[in-house]
Amino acid sequence: MLLSLDRQSPLPLFVQIRDQIRDQIASGILRQGERIPPTRDLATRLGVHRTTVANAYDELQAEGWIAGHVGRGTFVTEAAKPAAGNARKPEQARAGVNNGLAWSNLLVPEPAEEPLESLMPEAPRGTLSFLAARPSEAFFPVEDFRRACNTVLKREGRRLLQQGPSDGYPALKEWLQEWLREEGISVESNQILITNGCQQALDLTAKALVRPGDAVALENPIYPGAVSVFRRAGGRLVGVPVRPDGLDLQALEMLLEQAKPKVLLLTPNYQNPTGTSLTLAVRRRILELAAAHRVAIVEDNIYGGLHLRGPAWPPLKALDKSGIVIYLNSFSKICFPGLRVGWCVAAPEVISRLRSVKQASDLHTDQLAQAALAEFGRSGQVARHLKLMRKVYRRRLEVTEGALEKQMPEGVSWTKPAGGMAVWVTLPRSLDASEILFRARERGILFAPGRLFFFQNAEPNTLRLSFAGLEDDQIRRGIALLGGLLKAEMRQRRKGRAPGRREAAVALV
Amino acid sequence: MLLSLDRQSPLPLFVQIRDQIRDQIASGILRQGERIPPTRDLATRLGVHRTTVANAYDELQAEGWIAGHVGRGTFVTEAAKPAAGNARKPEQARAGVNNGLAWSNLLVPEPAEEPLESLMPEAPRGTLSFLAARPSEAFFPVEDFRRACNTVLKREGRRLLQQGPSDGYPALKEWLQEWLREEGISVESNQILITNGCQQALDLTAKALVRPGDAVALENPIYPGAVSVFRRAGGRLVGVPVRPDGLDLQALEMLLEQAKPKVLLLTPNYQNPTGTSLTLAVRRRILELAAAHRVAIVEDNIYGGLHLRGPAWPPLKALDKSGIVIYLNSFSKICFPGLRVGWCVAAPEVISRLRSVKQASDLHTDQLAQAALAEFGRSGQVARHLKLMRKVYRRRLEVTEGALEKQMPEGVSWTKPAGGMAVWVTLPRSLDASEILFRARERGILFAPGRLFFFQNAEPNTLRLSFAGLEDDQIRRGIALLGGLLKAEMRQRRKGRAPGRREAAVALV
Repeated sequence: MLLSLDRQSPLPLFVQIRDQIRDQIASGILRQGERIPPTRDLATRLGVHRTTVANAYDELQAEGWIAGHVGRGTFVTEAAKPAAGNARKPEQARAGVNNGLAWSNLLVPEPAEEPLESLMPEAPRGTLSFLAARPSEAFFPVEDFRRACNTVLKREGRRLLQQGPSDGYPALKEWLQEWLREEGISVESNQILITNGCQQALDLTAKALVRPGDAVALENPIYPGAVSVFRRAGGRLVGVPVRPDGLDLQALEMLLEQAKPKVLLLTPNYQNPTGTSLTLAVRRRILELAAAHRVAIVEDNIYGGLHLRGPAWPPLKALDKSGIVIYLNSFSKICFPGLRVGWCVAAPEVISRLRSVKQASDLHTDQLAQAALAEFGRSGQVARHLKLMRKVYRRRLEVTEGALEKQMPEGVSWTKPAGGMAVWVTLPRSLDASEILFRARERGILFAPGRLFFFQNAEPNTLRLSFAGLEDDQIRRGIALLGGLLKAEMRQRRKGRAPGRREAAVALV
Repeated sequence: MLLSLDRQSPLPLFVQIRDQIRDQIASGILRQGERIPPTRDLATRLGVHRTTVANAYDELQAEGWIAGHVGRGTFVTEAAKPAAGNARKPEQARAGVNNGLAWSNLLVPEPAEEPLESLMPEAPRGTLSFLAARPSEAFFPVEDFRRACNTVLKREGRRLLQQGPSDGYPALKEWLQEWLREEGISVESNQILITNGCQQALDLTAKALVRPGDAVALENPIYPGAVSVFRRAGGRLVGVPVRPDGLDLQALEMLLEQAKPKVLLLTPNYQNPTGTSLTLAVRRRILELAAAHRVAIVEDNIYGGLHLRGPAWPPLKALDKSGIVIYLNSFSKICFPGLRVGWCVAAPEVISRLRSVKQASDLHTDQLAQAALAEFGRSGQVARHLKLMRKVYRRRLEVTEGALEKQMPEGVSWTKPAGGMAVWVTLPRSLDASEILFRARERGILFAPGRLFFFQNAEPNTLRLSFAGLEDDQIRRGIALLGGLLKAEMRQRRKGRAPGRREAAVALV
C-alpha cells in the first residue's frame, strides 16, 4: 500500500491517510477482502504517530470501507461501499454515475480541496462548539429588526422590491457615512460600495486587482475564505507571518522588497485567527511602507466593531492620506450574518471599478436587507445592540481566559486579544490539534484546528477557540473537557501509545 | 484631428467620436481655443451621416469641452473643463487627481467599456421608458409580501439572521422542488443551488467551467450581462446568430463542429432581446448535438415563467436525460428583482462545485429574502401573482403590437414573442437606433438600442422595446412618438440632412 503524505498541506495527516486509502479502494487498487496493515506498522512506515493511523482507520470503518475481524486483522469490506448517510464517496466514484458528460473533465480544477469543508465535522446535538466565529444568536433583537422591516416595506416597499443601483441602497450608504465617521473615516457616497458581506468584498477586490500570477501578500495564518478568493483569482500567495505576539513587521518589510506584491491584505484589529492587533506605530509604518512600494492595502476590519478592552486604534483607512487603502467591513459580526450585507470604502475610481465588477457578479445586493439595516442603524439600534454584545463578549473572553488558566496543562499558551470572538491557543509542538479534534468531537466539544488557517508553513499544534457563541458555563465545561483531553494525550504520548484504543489485531500485507 | 471608428464595436459611432475628441482634449492633443472641423466635413471624412457627428458635438458642448461661436466656428473651450454635474471626465483626468497610488496601473483592465453603463442615459421625469426589462412594480403585492416576512421572522428569526448553508435555505429549496416539478423538472435537493439572482448564477457557472481561452458559445444578440460574465472569465466568445425568426440552428451545428465550445449558453424561452423561442423539435436536436459534442448547456430560463400565448414548451432541463444542462432561473422577472434570489439546477457534482464557488464568492444568499419567498411561494402567492402578471403583460404585448402596426413607417418590422417582456424591432438598414435614441430622449421616450446586445456583427438598425413596465396608454403614446421620429428621420435622410439642427458654422482645420 503506497501512501504519500504532504506535511505542509492544510489537511491533517490522518485525513490524507483516510482519503488515500479510500481512493485506492474505490479505484480498485485495494481489492475487496484484501488485508490492510496494522496501525502500528503503517505508522512506523509513514513516520507518524500511531494515533494518526488509528484515526484514519476509525473513519474508514465508520464509512464502511474497511472492517476489523478479531484475531485476523483489518480488511477491505466485501461490499466496499460507504455506509448510508454521512459517508463521503470519492470523486471518481461519483463521476462514474454520470451517464452524460464527464463533468470532471469540464469543471475547472479547484485550487485545492476546501479545508473548511472537509474539516467541519457535523456536530452531534449538545456539542459545545468553539468552532465558528459567529455572533451569539440568543441576543439577536429579532423583534426590533422585524419592526424595521415593516417600516421600510410600508414606506418604500415597491422601490425596495424593484431592481436597484449596483453600488448600494442610498439610505444605507448615507447611514454608513455617519457610522464610518465614528471610526475616523470621512467619505463621500462615491467612496462606498455595498456588498454581500465581507466575503464578496474580498471577491470583488480580487477580481478588480488580481491577475493570474500577481503576488498577493496575506497574513499567515488567516481566515481561509480570504485564501480561497485570492487563490481562485490566480494570485501567487505570499505569507506575512503572524505570531502569537502579532504581525512580523520585519518579515513584511523583506517581503515587500522581494516579492513585490500588488496587494497586501491586513486585519489590523483582532486578527482572525490569532486575535492580535497592530499598534498605532505599526499601522503608521505599514502605511509608509505600502506607499513607498506602491502596494494596495486591503484592510479587513470585520472584527473592528468588537473592541473589548485596552486601547482602541483607528483603522488604517482613517490614517490613509494617500488613498491606498481599500477598507472592508460588514454587519456579519456586529449583528446579522444571515443577511449578507457588507461594505467597501476606497478611492472613487476604485469604487467605480468595484461597482462594475459587482454589476457583472450579481447586479446588486438585496435591497430589503439594506433598507432594513439602514432603518435599524438610523434609529440607533445597531449601536445599542453592539454595546450590549461588547459587554457579553468581554465577559465571555474573561471566562475563557479564567478557564484556560485553570485547565490547561503546562506547555500550552494562548493570545490575549483586545477584541473579536476568539482566542488562539498554542499546544506543545508534539501535538496536532486536528487529531485532537477527532477525539474532542467524541467527547462533545469542537474547536477550529490551526491548520485551517495556514496556507503555508502550517503549525499543527495550534487551535482557535471561538467563545462568542457559548454561555459562561458552556465555556467552562468545554475548556475543562479540552484540558482533560490534552492532559491525557500528553500523558499517553509520554508513554508512547494512544489512549482509549483497542490493539489493532492486524498483520502487515 | 485623427479619429478611428470601429463599426463592429457595440459602442455607437457618435459615442466613439465623442469619446475620442474628449480624450484628445483631455490629453492636450487638441488644445484650448483650437478650432474643430464642421460636422459636414468631419462626417464626409469619416464616411458617416452628419447627424452622427452633430450628436457627438452636442454632447461635448453639453459637457463643456467645446463651444460654438456664431459666424466663427466651434472651438475647444478655454477652460476645457467639463460642466458640473452630469459630465463624464475621461479616465486619464480622473487618475491624475490621485496623489497616492496610480490606481489605473493596479486595476485589472476591463474587458471592454461596459456598453450598458455608457448607453443608459438618465431619463428625465415623465420619460416613457421602454429601456429596462423589469417587472411592473405597480402590481407588486407589497402587503402580502410584508406579511410573509413577518411570518418567517416570528417563526424562525434567529435562524434566518444567523449564518446559513451555502447551497440555500432549506425551506426555499423544498418549495423550488415543487415549483420545478410543474415545469417537468424532478430533482433532489442536492441538484439545486440558490444564488443571488440569475446574474450570480451565470457568474458562478463561468467560474466553475471557464478557464482563460476556453471557447464559450453565446447567442448573438444576447443579454449583455452574460457577455460581461464570460468575457471577464477569459472565455473566447463565439456567437450563435439569433435572427428575428429565431436561432440559426445550422450555424450552431457548424460552430459546435469548428469552435468546439466548452459551454453553450441558450435562452430557449422568449430570448432576450429578440423574444424568439425554440420549438420542441429544435430543443431535442440541440440536446442531441450537445451530447454528441460533449458541450455543457447553460439554460437561462429567466423569462420562462412569462408565457403569454401560443404553445408552451418544456425547458431543456426537462428533456435532458444525460444531465448536461445547467438550468438557471430567478424571482427577478416573475416577482421581485430587488431581492436578488435565483437558482441553478444541475447534476449533483456540478451543484457541489458551484456551492464551493458560491462559498468563496459570498458564503450564501440573504436568508430573510429566501425564507420570505419560500413562505410566499408555499402559500400560493407566487403562482397567483404570476397569473395576474401574465394577464397584464399579454395585454401590454397586444397593445404594443397594435401601436406598432399603426405607427411604424414602412420598412420597419418586429418579432412576435410568445412570452417575456419585450419586442425586437428592426429598422431599415440605413438607420442606427442608438443615434435615434439620442433624439428620442429629447422627445421623452427611451428604448434599448440593438447594439447593446450584440457582442459581434452588430446590427445597429435594431432596438428592443420593453413593454412590461408601461401602461397601455403610455405604450401607445411612446410608440406614436417613436413612429413620428422614425418617419421624420427617414424623410430627412432621403433629403440628405439631419432634422431640427442648426447649420454648424465651422471651418475645416
